[in-house]
Amino acid sequence: MVGLSGKRCVVLGGGGFIGTNLRVALQKAGAVVTGYGRRPRFAVEAGKWVDGDFADREAMAHAIAGATHVFHLIGSADPGQSNLDPGLDARTHVPASIAVLEACRDANVEKLLFLSSGGTVYRPGLPLPIAEDAPTDPISAYGIGKLTVEKYCALFRRLFGLDTVVLRIANPYGPFQCPHRGQGFVAKLLYRALNGEPVQIWGDGQIVRDYVYVDDVIQAILAAAVRHGQVEPINVGSGVGRSLRDVVLDVERLLERRIDVSFEVGRAADTPANVLDIRRAVVELDWAPRQPWINGLRLTHDWLITA
Amino acid sequence: MVGLSGKRCVVLGGGGFIGTNLRVALQKAGAVVTGYGRRPRFAVEAGKWVDGDFADREAMAHAIAGATHVFHLIGSADPGQSNLDPGLDARTHVPASIAVLEACRDANVEKLLFLSSGGTVYRPGLPLPIAEDAPTDPISAYGIGKLTVEKYCALFRRLFGLDTVVLRIANPYGPFQCPHRGQGFVAKLLYRALNGEPVQIWGDGQIVRDYVYVDDVIQAILAAAVRHGQVEPINVGSGVGRSLRDVVLDVERLLERRIDVSFEVGRAADTPANVLDIRRAVVELDWAPRQPWINGLRLTHDWLITA
Repeated sequence: MVGLSGKRCVVLGGGGFIGTNLRVALQKAGAVVTGYGRRPRFAVEAGKWVDGDFADREAMAHAIAGATHVFHLIGSADPGQSNLDPGLDARTHVPASIAVLEACRDANVEKLLFLSSGGTVYRPGLPLPIAEDAPTDPISAYGIGKLTVEKYCALFRRLFGLDTVVLRIANPYGPFQCPHRGQGFVAKLLYRALNGEPVQIWGDGQIVRDYVYVDDVIQAILAAAVRHGQVEPINVGSGVGRSLRDVVLDVERLLERRIDVSFEVGRAADTPANVLDIRRAVVELDWAPRQPWINGLRLTHDWLITA
Repeated sequence: MVGLSGKRCVVLGGGGFIGTNLRVALQKAGAVVTGYGRRPRFAVEAGKWVDGDFADREAMAHAIAGATHVFHLIGSADPGQSNLDPGLDARTHVPASIAVLEACRDANVEKLLFLSSGGTVYRPGLPLPIAEDAPTDPISAYGIGKLTVEKYCALFRRLFGLDTVVLRIANPYGPFQCPHRGQGFVAKLLYRALNGEPVQIWGDGQIVRDYVYVDDVIQAILAAAVRHGQVEPINVGSGVGRSLRDVVLDVERLLERRIDVSFEVGRAADTPANVLDIRRAVVELDWAPRQPWINGLRLTHDWLITA
């Protein structure tokens, strides 16, 4: 990516699914990369790593000092889990995110990118696809936390001139997504199918999601990191909806085997259908999702069997 | 007010401007009233008072236990001040508000009413008047805090069936508004004019606000406390916009004296114009603002000279 060579990039929460992919991509783009967070789950060639807690403001500010670009990817529990203790994100994640904003302001970083959630901030039941100016009424504490941090990003942009960019990511899938942490349906499904294990689906399988391959997400992040525009926030997805049942069928075809699926009672935090309108990303980031769905599934499968 | 007689009403933040008026009105309506918060600034006949901190969750939960109706009026710094430490509300006010929601859920209260802010949650520069489904992009940490608590109210309604109602109040004025705390322009202006002191105005005086007399706000709160509808949130204002300059002229006419006004550089937290669309309140609460503006000014004046 032109524009990031030599830039000092700090990836907060860099040890997770998207963070690992992002650090590798930044390294390839010639950036000077620092990852910060809990010990990474995967060893990759991607610059420096700093073990640190998100609640440790001094350590985080130290990691941010000197950075030109900061990528805030630190997430909390998954949406379903977050409702078990609705106040947890508000007590931990949001204040820590504001500390990130303050540290970025104080360090005069060129750009702060915040990864929000296109799957959880919008009101359930909206016509599809959902554009960025649609009503935001999260039905999980996870979504409220993401939305709140978005608002603080906008506030710091306005008050202090901090150049923030907020991306609302749909349902990413691909290499480095852990199949065991409730992170993503595709990883869980592929892993279980490969191991001949049964798969539980919340609800009747008609839930529709917008699955976007992680490389496409990474390209959107890199484009956002060097963009000059001001329009905010920006949806990042495939723009295509697939039901859980359809995903199961596609994986069955890919693997040429039947998957043992059981349907469980739906979760309150699951919105019935979510597909993002990605026209703003196309215009603002000169970006489009490139990975065809079946190819993406195959690449994820190939990674899983070697991981 | 029919419907509140004998109800056990707890007013959190009951010692302030709206809280004092509300406790008096609830008492008159035959409710069993408990106020909770910092020591009240004014002595009124309005049930029991409990000195307590908002951060003291146990004391607050104890005050809430046994209540049928809880009114969450606890506010933080004013919008302008809030931006001096943007994380303060997020660290204190929001987690404490979630604790209120949890306590209300656990105590099976019939209704939780949350007083939000019609003056600070909306995006600046919207066409007037502003309806409830307009974009919410606060330009103060105060506004973000209010909006976040609104979202948690909706979450607790959805997850736990807690009957919440959110009112977005415009710029209230009237008796018990303290002229010394940056709470309201009308109180400050009247007080200073009465004392022959000069008045500073942020900006050029063209800022437009929706001033609503406190008795009208109280009537809306009482109606909301007994309503059965589900539509949320609800704007409460006069629906009429007045510039700061116009307010100064009206007060000059009322007092029959000139006011020494100086114009200061505008504050980042001030949206240029804010007038609420109150049609939803009219329908949902069978309510309308009744106090004519000049009457309201006169009543506020009369209270100030005896307070």
